[in-house]
Amino acid sequence: MIHIGHNILSDPDILLPFIQSKQVLIVTQQTIAQWYLKELQAILTGHQCDVIFLAEGEQYKNIEEWQKIISALVANKHERDTTLIALGGGMVGDMTGFAAACYQRGVNYIQIPTTLIGQVDSAIGGKTGINHPLGKNLIGAFYHPQCIIADVNTLTTLSDREFSAGLAEVVKYGLICDADFFGWLEKNIVSILAKDKNALLHIVRHCSAIKTKFVALDEKDHGERRLLNFGHTFGHALETLHGYQAILHGEAVAIGMIMAAQWSEKLGFISAADVLRIRNLLDECRIKMDLPSIPYADLIEQMHRDKKVKNGELTLVLLEKIGKAVVSIEKGLSCSLSYCHASQPSLA
Amino acid sequence: MIHIGHNILSDPDILLPFIQSKQVLIVTQQTIAQWYLKELQAILTGHQCDVIFLAEGEQYKNIEEWQKIISALVANKHERDTTLIALGGGMVGDMTGFAAACYQRGVNYIQIPTTLIGQVDSAIGGKTGINHPLGKNLIGAFYHPQCIIADVNTLTTLSDREFSAGLAEVVKYGLICDADFFGWLEKNIVSILAKDKNALLHIVRHCSAIKTKFVALDEKDHGERRLLNFGHTFGHALETLHGYQAILHGEAVAIGMIMAAQWSEKLGFISAADVLRIRNLLDECRIKMDLPSIPYADLIEQMHRDKKVKNGELTLVLLEKIGKAVVSIEKGLSCSLSYCHASQPSLA
Repeated sequence: MIHIGHNILSDPDILLPFIQSKQVLIVTQQTIAQWYLKELQAILTGHQCDVIFLAEGEQYKNIEEWQKIISALVANKHERDTTLIALGGGMVGDMTGFAAACYQRGVNYIQIPTTLIGQVDSAIGGKTGINHPLGKNLIGAFYHPQCIIADVNTLTTLSDREFSAGLAEVVKYGLICDADFFGWLEKNIVSILAKDKNALLHIVRHCSAIKTKFVALDEKDHGERRLLNFGHTFGHALETLHGYQAILHGEAVAIGMIMAAQWSEKLGFISAADVLRIRNLLDECRIKMDLPSIPYADLIEQMHRDKKVKNGELTLVLLEKIGKAVVSIEKGLSCSLSYCHASQPSLA
Repeated sequence: MIHIGHNILSDPDILLPFIQSKQVLIVTQQTIAQWYLKELQAILTGHQCDVIFLAEGEQYKNIEEWQKIISALVANKHERDTTLIALGGGMVGDMTGFAAACYQRGVNYIQIPTTLIGQVDSAIGGKTGINHPLGKNLIGAFYHPQCIIADVNTLTTLSDREFSAGLAEVVKYGLICDADFFGWLEKNIVSILAKDKNALLHIVRHCSAIKTKFVALDEKDHGERRLLNFGHTFGHALETLHGYQAILHGEAVAIGMIMAAQWSEKLGFISAADVLRIRNLLDECRIKMDLPSIPYADLIEQMHRDKKVKNGELTLVLLEKIGKAVVSIEKGLSCSLSYCHASQPSLA
């Protein structure tokens, strides 16, 4: 059940039907809590409403921080019918979902994503997890929330950098399956960057519907759903090698999508003009893509640690055209792609 | 799929059909590895067969030790189609199962339980997990193995203390649902303690069939399956308070069953003679039940941290008669039971 709207975060008629006992644990972070925690707590005054704050930054999406959620549940004697509420971005959602999946072998949780990337992508589909020092999201579970409440009003308090990074996932939906939507994004980039309410509602509704469709087709990620990983194999490797600090997830995905587009061009699928069109839209979204370079051998080594590796072969998602992605099994990638500066990924 | 037999642990025709790729990680402990690891490895020579040894003792059934399994998988680049093999007792099975549940959001695993408690109870039913410092099995998942291979020959290398502790769970099945089996145990205790092959095969086949039936009725433990917790709410509390060191799980369950039987007598369900009969069989099983005493208030406090607590009420399993257990919701337990010495639990 996904609720999308404007100023719906603290609507008791939406939230309360999904809370089944008197116990609630809100998991959040200080930056977002300052804006929305009080209004959320205000509709939970009849409950034992505990709150825990996670440290901010992808480098804290680790097992130690995750254990704090579990320990808060134990210490406050939360029972099997408790409800966890994830109030925050993708990191809060992933960690809360994984805590809900594991506490007493599974309790209920609700997603209230407050970032663009959370509302269009990570809160939907039941993928939960944390990072291992050697790889992103290597520890986790498929575990669905009772409901998702996406309030586009929360996007107005995002930093410009975070908002733009989130647009990478939005652009991705256009690239993999919806050329019309890609065109709509090109035409409406000004009102999008101005966070126009109707533009935001259109984006969140459209993208969450696409994501939901993919998840319904292939929950466990063995078929169609893999197309959603466009740009992500490159992106995850970049995030891990940079230590999850210098780069936001959406930024890594944006660079990864450019690299995947170039690879698609090299294989004769799309034209150089298409690659340029993709790069232009990502630039217009103002996504930060200037990173220190990384030795290409390290990037390839890291990509082979990805979950999408099978029998040593990388499963990459490539573009047949703008609006149509395909899954491609790649061997011998190491001798073919060259990695210069992330800001200007290019082929040798 | 459960295979039960004698000397079947290293039968390739049983094991290999359940391994779907070239990668295997065997999770075991030194004590058991000295007996059975080599013969298991011998049928996996065609595979990338990695091995990890877990520290021994319930006090190591913790998140740090569990992370070592995950790290071994990451370091050795295990892919989504890898297979974990749990070779050992309930602790190895629970931790391996939980690692399989979480690595890359779920990979395959196989249970080869080598203890009585593993073969009749913990390997069956998909309950996996680890302990939190404040409570047993508070972190985990429902996650089923591809198959279970129960080789009763492995029971001959158990210590007498461990074997006897395992009999507590065997006696439990008789108590909760099978008076005839309880009688069979009383009559055959000599050949059971002598680890007679046919007695062992009968016990493992009979108990695993009972367990499988309960799990099929109620996988997620909200109804019938709760009867399997007879003696466990008391038992878990004892284990936690003793730090999982002074007491084996089966020993705690044995004491817990005596306490639950006494409570059942106090409520008028069973007779004092029944309580004595239960205690006598547990004594004849040579289960170690002499523990230092624990303040009763601490025991009750600990019991309220149990997963079976709902709205502050303890769900206890009591006996209506030998061979029939019932679920009972208990309030105000604190003023009614007295805890003296665990070796002689008694009512005030």
